[in-house]
Parts: sequence; C-alpha cells; structure tokens
Amino acid sequence: MMRIDIISAVPDLLLSPLNTSIIKRAQDKGKVVISIHNLRDYAFNKHKQIDDKPFGGGAGMVLKPEPFFECIEKLSQERKYDHVIFTTPKGRIFNQKDANRLSLAENILLVAGHYKEIDDRVREKFATDEISIGNFVLTGGELPALLIVDAVIRLIPGVLNDSESALDDSFQDGEKIEAPLYTRPAEYRGMKVPDVLLSGNEKEIKKWKEEQSQILTEKWRNYNN
Amino acid sequence: MMRIDIISAVPDLLLSPLNTSIIKRAQDKGKVVISIHNLRDYAFNKHKQIDDKPFGGGAGMVLKPEPFFECIEKLSQERKYDHVIFTTPKGRIFNQKDANRLSLAENILLVAGHYKEIDDRVREKFATDEISIGNFVLTGGELPALLIVDAVIRLIPGVLNDSESALDDSFQDGEKIEAPLYTRPAEYRGMKVPDVLLSGNEKEIKKWKEEQSQILTEKWRNYNN
Repeated sequence: MMRIDIISAVPDLLLSPLNTSIIKRAQDKGKVVISIHNLRDYAFNKHKQIDDKPFGGGAGMVLKPEPFFECIEKLSQERKYDHVIFTTPKGRIFNQKDANRLSLAENILLVAGHYKEIDDRVREKFATDEISIGNFVLTGGELPALLIVDAVIRLIPGVLNDSESALDDSFQDGEKIEAPLYTRPAEYRGMKVPDVLLSGNEKEIKKWKEEQSQILTEKWRNYNN
Repeated sequence: MMRIDIISAVPDLLLSPLNTSIIKRAQDKGKVVISIHNLRDYAFNKHKQIDDKPFGGGAGMVLKPEPFFECIEKLSQERKYDHVIFTTPKGRIFNQKDANRLSLAENILLVAGHYKEIDDRVREKFATDEISIGNFVLTGGELPALLIVDAVIRLIPGVLNDSESALDDSFQDGEKIEAPLYTRPAEYRGMKVPDVLLSGNEKEIKKWKEEQSQILTEKWRNYNN
C-alpha cells in the first residue's frame, strides 16, 4: 500500500480534494494512506512563528527552516521515503512519465511551500525531487501537490474500475490527444454526433478515432511548441 | 469586481481550496465572487443521470450534453462571460501570460469535466478558451480550474498585501527563476545563509541575486526544454 505524507502551512486547503471522488475511493479501498501534517505543529518557538523576513531584503515572508527540519526528520524516522518532493516553480515540469514513476513508490513525502518560499536550506537538505506544475505563479505548493497526488493515485492498480481504464486517456501513451467523445442523445439542439460513431462499423470507427486523434495531437503541438 | 462561476460534477471537491488563504481573503475583501454550480442540479431526466456510454465504444463514461447546455445557458442569461474556459488536456498549456490576461476579465465561467470527458458538442458550442495544465492525466478538470482561479485572483489589484507583492516572483516577469531565499537563523544545524545576504551591502546583494537567478533560470531551462 502506498503512503503519501503532505506537509503544509495551510493544511485545511487540502481537505476537500483529498476526500472526494477517486482520491477518496483509493483511500477507502486501502490502496493509499494520505496523511497531512500542519507545519505550525512543528514550530516550537514562543509564538509558533513559521515565517520571517528574507535576509538581504525583498518583499514577502520566507518559511523558516526549523519547523520543516523537525517535521521531516520525525517522519523520516518512522519510514524511509522513496521521494521527498518539493513543489516549486524552480523544478522540472511534471508530466505523465513522472506520474508513472512515482506510482511505483511505497512512501512519498510532499513538501508544499506557501506565500513566498521555503528557506532554501530545507530544499538543499531533503529534496529528492523538485517538481513544477508550470510557468505560472501560485499562492502555494498545495494545489500542485494535489495534482501530483491525483495523477499518481489513479495509476495504482485497483484504484480505477475497469470501466475507467486509464490506458486510452490523452497523454497516458506519450503526447497523444484522444479523439472527441460523444454520448446520447445522438442529436441535441441540431448538433449531431458524427455518423461514423453510430454506424456500428468497428473498423471505420477505429480509423475515424485515429484520424481525429492525429488532428487534435497536431493542433495541440502547434499550440504548445 | 470579478465574478467566477465554476461548473462541476463533483462540486464538493472545490470547497476547501476556495475557502482558504488568499482565495478566501479575496472573496472576504469583495474583490471576487466565486460561485460553484453542481452539474447534477441541471440533469432534468428521471434519474438525474449526468453521464452515459460513449458512442462508438471504448472505456469510461462521457458527461452528457444536456446538463451543461442547461447550466451554461442559464448562467449566460444572467451575465455576459468574457471567457468560457474548458479545462482539458486538449487545450493550450496555461502560463503566466494567460493568468495576466484573465485577471482583466469581469466574468469568467470555468467548465470542469470529470472521469472521462464532456460530450464534445458542449465544447464546440460554448468554449472560448481550452486550457490544459500540462501533459498528464487527471481525474477531472477541477484541480486545473482551481489552479487557474488561484493564479488569476492573486493578480487582482488589492488582493495581495504590499508585503506579498507578486512582482519578483518566479515567472511573473517571463521565464525567470528567483534567487534562493533565506531567513533566520543565519546558521542552523551547521548550514549557513550565504555571507553576502548578511553583509548589508545592497549592491553586492543585488548582484548575487541576479547571478543566482541566472544560474537557476539556466538550470530550469535545461530541465524543461
């Protein structure tokens, strides 16, 4: 069974996504244990202070090193982590290969910064993976951590039902966008489902899906390269 | 004041991130109104069914067109949306320029799919923007929608305090990674903050930060290109 620990200064942010849909079901099925750790519980100074001004000046507050050291060291005494992942704009951009790789791990520790950044000594000491979700500025690393959890958990055998099989999803199989999907009604407000999908001709349907997939993948590459 | 509507089949997933930290504060300050719409409330068939099997076969369920049409049309009668954004792996990959652009909007509608996909006629009819968060497979479009909300809201004037000024964050200013940050204590478990940051010499500090920023930006580009 996989275990995922998440350290955050705003742990409440994580609650509803971890307790809904497939992430919830994976926990209910005993496929994964997810444990949230409140950074503030590891601030042993008088005012439970977790941040302070940056050395050398500049706007924003920096998360202090001590609570992270205390928390990560305590957790590391309890088990060995295959990955200690820092979600940070400085990292490598997450992709499906990373998700596949992480889904094989036994113990994952996710460390999320919030507001500005974490004192860099924490990263230097503990990070095995620095992962970015993309080229944009966020309030914290919590949403990226949740994305990673979601992408990883659905790959654990037994989490998805047969009917949810992940194999033909876009990106599961490299840079390939899936053909458009349609369901009933076949005609709705004058908009018709492509005839071929109603034809029952499996060979033609397969051909159409492959063509559509190629068109969309090319369109996607033009967008994104 | 900005207004953001989000349509989802699993609206509970959205609750805690929208009610924590800076997204909560932006709403409390009256800078943004965020309204969640449960797709199921717009399923007017007998069993409140929102999904069905795909035409042409294949694994997974497809979200039916009718509830989306009903919901989007109702909302569109109440106000004009500057953007009707579908979060989908097929879209353009989100970046800070998109966040900057969207932060100027008055009304944004985010449409999140879940499980497999939304019947493609919904996208064809309503989508003004198709946004992807990256090359990986997720359970739904809810977490990407939350990322977009977070990235956009923090850019609305008055949401961040002066001390949280977003201007020197990584990526706010193009592809530029910020220098490492440190705070007290200056020495912790034998790990020292770089001397220059304690020097008080503003010119040297600025030079060091620029050098570090260049090094990290180059490292980041090597990772990600």
